[in-house]
Amino acid sequence: MNYRMIKNVIGWILLFEAGFFLIPMVTALVYAEKEIFSFGLSALICMAAASILIFVAKPKSKTLYSREGFVIVSLSWIFLSLFGALPFVFSNTIPNYVDALFETVSGFSTTGASILPAVEHLPRSILMWRSFTHWVGGMGVLVFIMAFLPLGGGGNMHIMKAESTGASVSKLVPRIKTTALILYTIYLSLTLLQFILLLCGGMSVFESINTAFATAGTGGFGIKNDSMNSYSSYLQIVTAVFMLLFSINFSSYYLAIRGRFKNAFNAEVRGFIVIVVTAVALITLNIRGMFDSLFESFKHSLFTVASIISTSGFSTVDFDLWPELSKTVIVLIMFIGACAGSTGGGIKVSRMIILVKGAFKELSQMLHPKQVKKVTMDKRPVEHEVVRSVNAYIVCFVLIFVVSLVLISFDNKGLVTNFTAVTSMLNNIGPGLSEVGPTQNYASFSVFSKIVLIFDMLAGRLELFPMLLLFKPGTWKK
Amino acid sequence: MNYRMIKNVIGWILLFEAGFFLIPMVTALVYAEKEIFSFGLSALICMAAASILIFVAKPKSKTLYSREGFVIVSLSWIFLSLFGALPFVFSNTIPNYVDALFETVSGFSTTGASILPAVEHLPRSILMWRSFTHWVGGMGVLVFIMAFLPLGGGGNMHIMKAESTGASVSKLVPRIKTTALILYTIYLSLTLLQFILLLCGGMSVFESINTAFATAGTGGFGIKNDSMNSYSSYLQIVTAVFMLLFSINFSSYYLAIRGRFKNAFNAEVRGFIVIVVTAVALITLNIRGMFDSLFESFKHSLFTVASIISTSGFSTVDFDLWPELSKTVIVLIMFIGACAGSTGGGIKVSRMIILVKGAFKELSQMLHPKQVKKVTMDKRPVEHEVVRSVNAYIVCFVLIFVVSLVLISFDNKGLVTNFTAVTSMLNNIGPGLSEVGPTQNYASFSVFSKIVLIFDMLAGRLELFPMLLLFKPGTWKK
Repeated sequence: MNYRMIKNVIGWILLFEAGFFLIPMVTALVYAEKEIFSFGLSALICMAAASILIFVAKPKSKTLYSREGFVIVSLSWIFLSLFGALPFVFSNTIPNYVDALFETVSGFSTTGASILPAVEHLPRSILMWRSFTHWVGGMGVLVFIMAFLPLGGGGNMHIMKAESTGASVSKLVPRIKTTALILYTIYLSLTLLQFILLLCGGMSVFESINTAFATAGTGGFGIKNDSMNSYSSYLQIVTAVFMLLFSINFSSYYLAIRGRFKNAFNAEVRGFIVIVVTAVALITLNIRGMFDSLFESFKHSLFTVASIISTSGFSTVDFDLWPELSKTVIVLIMFIGACAGSTGGGIKVSRMIILVKGAFKELSQMLHPKQVKKVTMDKRPVEHEVVRSVNAYIVCFVLIFVVSLVLISFDNKGLVTNFTAVTSMLNNIGPGLSEVGPTQNYASFSVFSKIVLIFDMLAGRLELFPMLLLFKPGTWKK
Repeated sequence: MNYRMIKNVIGWILLFEAGFFLIPMVTALVYAEKEIFSFGLSALICMAAASILIFVAKPKSKTLYSREGFVIVSLSWIFLSLFGALPFVFSNTIPNYVDALFETVSGFSTTGASILPAVEHLPRSILMWRSFTHWVGGMGVLVFIMAFLPLGGGGNMHIMKAESTGASVSKLVPRIKTTALILYTIYLSLTLLQFILLLCGGMSVFESINTAFATAGTGGFGIKNDSMNSYSSYLQIVTAVFMLLFSINFSSYYLAIRGRFKNAFNAEVRGFIVIVVTAVALITLNIRGMFDSLFESFKHSLFTVASIISTSGFSTVDFDLWPELSKTVIVLIMFIGACAGSTGGGIKVSRMIILVKGAFKELSQMLHPKQVKKVTMDKRPVEHEVVRSVNAYIVCFVLIFVVSLVLISFDNKGLVTNFTAVTSMLNNIGPGLSEVGPTQNYASFSVFSKIVLIFDMLAGRLELFPMLLLFKPGTWKK
């Protein structure tokens, strides 16, 4: 294990985080908020820690293997969160450190679950920091760093693999650095486009930036107490559409730009559209009686489905009050989530397709035991190790889910609350049902449960394996 | 597809069912109940249908392939249930045919969920028929028939495979017929032993027979309105122990009798014991404050865990009132279920072990990508196709679960009710939580939902594939 190199990368992460703090500092400057000092102090602490990590005991070799890749990714995200929580404590907006950490992890992991009952009274710089953590976390902080700072050695691909979402990772272009730059260009362009469309709808510059950041990362931290409820239908629909756009594999956009439309419109994208249309139609009909017009019922259905399947977590209504059929559909799409290689969370549509196709293949094999078939996707056979890894993913998902559920049930909240809380955390959504419904928050959980949920958010964002491997003794062996 | 042979086997099933009706007929005779005519009429109808199926258009060939095996098993169970429901309708104890079918399928599938709010007023012959369906369904009706009637051809193993529980089926002895006889001898002996022990505890002969039948099949139909609540601690503990004994692979008993203790005490049995002990300990401590003594709290914990993990469904207390931690543990062990090759339902401990070992293997493979390892159980490698089939099983389980959940949510009952109802049906348990808790019943579901739940009970008992394959067009192709 190349400990020195791990230390070095974490150092760079903290140095970049010090830079991230400039965004809320500028905000504080614009609005003349005293929180500029909280962010300044946090930045100084980050820089001090970074200097020690980077310059003391420099790495002898830049070689990184698969296991270093996993450890670097999980530790980077943990350190990023540990230091990212400081401004909340220093500014006294969230005095309790565990609560501040919950909020920060919820930000970086693009979950958007809050321990704050209200947000409108918060300083604007703090709101900006919350939204910005979503934006950084959405595409992945290590991908961001790799776009600017080549780590050298052959380790980049291991890191990219460990941080990206989905069953298999492919480089868009031969060089990792160029791939990372392309991804960030698409990300930035879409964010900018949404920002402009929100401005056109009459949203203020501050609100537009925040909403675009939180949508792009499919995070869901709101800047209003009622999330998106009080905005116009135009603003709600623009946000719903962009939540869906950010749920699609970014390589599809790249392929579309290069004119390869057939490749861009692949099986996962088609599956995603089918699921969204089905869910929106079912819920629109089911909640028809609760709203004045079919348009209203369609709008809330579209927004909620987009918000949940993209794992953002914004809301325009309290869907906890909807009929059981709608709530059941919402819980189910919580597990499906977005497309691989997007900023959205969840188990991912591609994994679902591989699982279902694998099961159907087994069923035909039962009828014709001598037949040999392979699972295919987009007319290409799915590699055997991808299928195995997807199956392992599901088992690990269920294991973490079950252990978390048992651990937080010590708080003696209802089964629906506990079940949807863990679902929401592991899939990086935000709201659940009942006591963690869209109008509620996570403040009432015990410190112990909050730590469990913090782990779940990180595990969900990093797709389980990096966080699980931290607990495997084999990871740390020489 | 050898349709004539399928028709022939179903005919034999119905002929045996006519014979099964003798048990409640004798009961009716002993207690001078007029329901003797309801059973007599049902027996006549069975015999008439059987004669047509067996003697008109005799099979030209006795050859059965894998897919005929699946179709025979699923259709046999459907016909067995369709005709088994007749006495409930004829005797007017359950006048509605769908309700009667629900009760019968619940019996044969050893679920034990009832649509009856009370049972003590029922004629004793009707109670006996309910309990006896558990006993027949527990070991499998086709295994029963094969013990007496060799179907000829090479198809026996296909049928046995399709009806038995667990990931892989092995014959105890080279001949299927002898294997079936050995299994039934063990089954009968254990039932008899429990019957004697219950008698010794002061239970009446009638109650002892019924309780032993329902325990042996891990069914759970009670003959008292309060299930096992009013019985003495001795009777409750005897029943709890036997529920656990009937959850263990019957081949383990055979191996133990043959002196091969090490093979009998295999990984699955050890895993089962670990799960039971952990669950009992957790719940005992969690419900400690609700009972007068530690013994009481231990007794109810043991009984409930035994009842749920064996998928019987008897109850001594209303565990729906227990704290969340206990309820969460109960819901979790609902999914685990008993050992393969027992009369219990659920996903089965062996499948769980294979899944977890498979995921752990993938995790180490991530650290060392070039390493090649195989999943092992009892120091032998698990065949690759078994692992694949277990994964397919889980995916099919989740698919049926999700579709059922959406379909019954049209009734607009709460999420906990719907979720635990489907869990309870697919795992053949009986009670769930909330509106289907141990003191409730399934009467309030719509006819449509009841049909969905009937499908789930059969799918659960037959381990999904035979029921799913009925819907696959490929099954019916020439």
